[in-house]
Amino acid sequence: MLESIKESPLYPIANPKSIAFFGASNRITSMGTNLLASIQALGFEGAIYPVHPSEKQVRNLKAYRSVLDLPEAADLAVLVLPARLVPQTVEECGKKGINRAIIVSGGFKEVGGEGVDLEQQLKEIADKYGIRFLGPNCIGVANPHHKLNTTFLPHEGAPGYIGMASQSGSLVTQMFNYLSRYSLGFSTAFSVGNEANMDIVDCLEYLGACPHTRVIALYIEDIKRGRAFVDMARSIVPHKPIVALYVGGSDTGKRASLSHTGAMAGPDLLYEGIFRQSGIIRAQSVTELFDLCWALGGLPIPRGRRVVIQTHSGGPGAAAADACGRAGLELPPLSSETLEKLDSLLPRTSSRNNPVDLTFIKDPLQYFTDIPKVLLEDSNVDILLVYFLTVAKVVRRALEHMGIPEDQIPEQSSKLMDEQCESVVRLMNNSDKLFVGYTYRSLEDHFTQGLLQRGVPVFPEAARAARALQALLQYSDLRNKMLDGPARKTEEI
Amino acid sequence: MLESIKESPLYPIANPKSIAFFGASNRITSMGTNLLASIQALGFEGAIYPVHPSEKQVRNLKAYRSVLDLPEAADLAVLVLPARLVPQTVEECGKKGINRAIIVSGGFKEVGGEGVDLEQQLKEIADKYGIRFLGPNCIGVANPHHKLNTTFLPHEGAPGYIGMASQSGSLVTQMFNYLSRYSLGFSTAFSVGNEANMDIVDCLEYLGACPHTRVIALYIEDIKRGRAFVDMARSIVPHKPIVALYVGGSDTGKRASLSHTGAMAGPDLLYEGIFRQSGIIRAQSVTELFDLCWALGGLPIPRGRRVVIQTHSGGPGAAAADACGRAGLELPPLSSETLEKLDSLLPRTSSRNNPVDLTFIKDPLQYFTDIPKVLLEDSNVDILLVYFLTVAKVVRRALEHMGIPEDQIPEQSSKLMDEQCESVVRLMNNSDKLFVGYTYRSLEDHFTQGLLQRGVPVFPEAARAARALQALLQYSDLRNKMLDGPARKTEEI
Repeated sequence: MLESIKESPLYPIANPKSIAFFGASNRITSMGTNLLASIQALGFEGAIYPVHPSEKQVRNLKAYRSVLDLPEAADLAVLVLPARLVPQTVEECGKKGINRAIIVSGGFKEVGGEGVDLEQQLKEIADKYGIRFLGPNCIGVANPHHKLNTTFLPHEGAPGYIGMASQSGSLVTQMFNYLSRYSLGFSTAFSVGNEANMDIVDCLEYLGACPHTRVIALYIEDIKRGRAFVDMARSIVPHKPIVALYVGGSDTGKRASLSHTGAMAGPDLLYEGIFRQSGIIRAQSVTELFDLCWALGGLPIPRGRRVVIQTHSGGPGAAAADACGRAGLELPPLSSETLEKLDSLLPRTSSRNNPVDLTFIKDPLQYFTDIPKVLLEDSNVDILLVYFLTVAKVVRRALEHMGIPEDQIPEQSSKLMDEQCESVVRLMNNSDKLFVGYTYRSLEDHFTQGLLQRGVPVFPEAARAARALQALLQYSDLRNKMLDGPARKTEEI
Repeated sequence: MLESIKESPLYPIANPKSIAFFGASNRITSMGTNLLASIQALGFEGAIYPVHPSEKQVRNLKAYRSVLDLPEAADLAVLVLPARLVPQTVEECGKKGINRAIIVSGGFKEVGGEGVDLEQQLKEIADKYGIRFLGPNCIGVANPHHKLNTTFLPHEGAPGYIGMASQSGSLVTQMFNYLSRYSLGFSTAFSVGNEANMDIVDCLEYLGACPHTRVIALYIEDIKRGRAFVDMARSIVPHKPIVALYVGGSDTGKRASLSHTGAMAGPDLLYEGIFRQSGIIRAQSVTELFDLCWALGGLPIPRGRRVVIQTHSGGPGAAAADACGRAGLELPPLSSETLEKLDSLLPRTSSRNNPVDLTFIKDPLQYFTDIPKVLLEDSNVDILLVYFLTVAKVVRRALEHMGIPEDQIPEQSSKLMDEQCESVVRLMNNSDKLFVGYTYRSLEDHFTQGLLQRGVPVFPEAARAARALQALLQYSDLRNKMLDGPARKTEEI
């Protein structure tokens, strides 16, 4: 493990003070121009030096004929050039004293033939000048904490806590929108491409030391340095969880077509073993990858697996109980103290088993205040899982009935829902128990967004919430085993 | 099986011409008033007769002191009264000649003690007058094709093809919003409550015969008439698929708390057996229940399990291939004819393996026209699975670059996206192969909504698409086995 993130060779790539940019023009239809536009759009605060053979200005920036003309050796070069121009350009960067690069260009090893030679040539030139680079055939890096985004799509949402190393650039750039809908975001995300110089192990090292990164997401098609990968992961997992989605890369199709049962052949078991040895938690889909990161990065480890479910609707409550049961969570009965306290709060029709099903309550605000408070105080409980339904239309209908003038209803209704959200946040912050929500409403609803934006995790399916809670407990076990048994370093955990 | 839906005792309940309503007032905070408001909001076209002890009008409808004063024997009575008033009211309905009822009121068998006696009394009175009823302790019925919704929340979206019988009222009424976001909807949905008179088997019989219902969704906590359930399901499955979510009801919590491993005890296996005998496909979560209904009700059975994946992004393509592999689908190589046809369409950087990864194409419209057309024509292919990404921002940026005046961009961008959607619909309708999409964008995006509203299934996760496709093939196998082997009627399929 690194003492400081600054020791990582990736540090200048993710935190450059200045960038030399090759391959942008004033045509937005070109890939390079798009990437430069993304950098500008996020408000990168360092100097950007476009290098262009003829233009004097590129996207309102002074352009340079040659990298040798730049006023300084930039911290980072970004290359979005045709493959054949890349080695020579890297050589010029070396001469200028630039020693970090992101090589976005495709047409290397991944296309075979001459591409393989070209990649070899590129590696040798880089080695000659001591240049460390990401790629080729990658999309670069997003570090929103540094206002840096070299990827194709504009960044969305706030900087977050998910560090990512991905063998797919799409699963970096195309996830900005996905994550922002959950009020999640990347701390730093690397697209590693062909890994000709720096690979996923280097990214792990960086992310392990990155103070903004609370959990690491990996998208893996194949691991080239198996031993180094396992050792690096094992050094990180005791203090930072790692989640991986392994898809078997281009072999998958072949395997799937060979196997009528759909059972994955050897490689899947091999990777399962690597992850087990490494203490890495495996996700089974893109959605699950980020669900588990959400929980592992955003929530404290619960003290145990005892869940109480709060609902006002039987079916959603039972569905959550079922999902918790399958995920190895426990649903204990409530303590007699809790039952006593609930007596004055719940109607006769309610169920005080677990799930606690309120059915109908006179004062809907209690759903966000007194009732969850009592449940969180129960000594049998480690986790409170709450079903959220708030429907803006119903809130507005209630306000109408209370005689609120029509023109004030939208504002009053927003205010009321915001107050409910604030209540939930206070409860969550004032308890040492875990608080998690779930809903089947849209995450884009005012109320759900209100919770998400305040940091309350609300999963759009009970089973997803249960799986995320399971991962927290899984990580807790893994960590304990790793901390207890450093002697068994190379064995299976 | 019924010859006609009209033979079902549920027919007048789901298709009444007139309703006597008990328990609504002019106070919107009361449950009864809410339910009446829902009926009115959907535009029920028959007569509604509120019965109220003192009000002359209820929600702008003429109110009646007693059911005996009604100008006719209504087809259906809806009761949202305190439990103790229910038996007597049902008796009066009987005297008036009303012989169908929805009893929403809670406080019967489910609360134990006196509630048990009250339910027995209710059953006897109903039997005396030949009254068939749903409930008590239910939320009634939604039949949007008949503009009928007796449930708590207002109906949303268009009438659909999912018939539902649910032991949770919430999973009817709270799903209107969920389903409408996918452009899905119920044909008819029944909340069965305590099943004192009509039960889930009666609902199955109705939905089996319902011409609007193309797939049946069941939410089950426990089945009371096991043999009748299996026989009824077996008579329906050969011509209409059934999907069930079983949650084990209130036992789940107890089981979960007893079992540290989370493995479910006996009952789960018992139900697994019942579903297998019945030819019912089991879903594992609320989301999966409706995903499978989406595919089984909305899509034709593919001729085989051979999928081709179309993508322009490697990671999402590989994730889909992986998900397909796990779901027992095959990814065959493309035929040589297809490869030849693709030659002129795809760039050098593209991959013509399966997934077909276009990387970058000059004319983005081809993604929605020529390319999928060629893939659908491949004789090795039964199913085309397409990754959708269209980002409104990027479309607008391209239009800006094309010199479209700024004030025309929103309209032009919508138009362009709508044209892409129309292209997809044409492709889908002109092919006898299955066409399915997936995306990680919001389903609420203009483009995705454009596809969904035109009936193109776009799943918000590759693994969910793959599971839905798997269910189609699973149903095809089940149906074939049932049609082939009627002699093995009571055996396991």
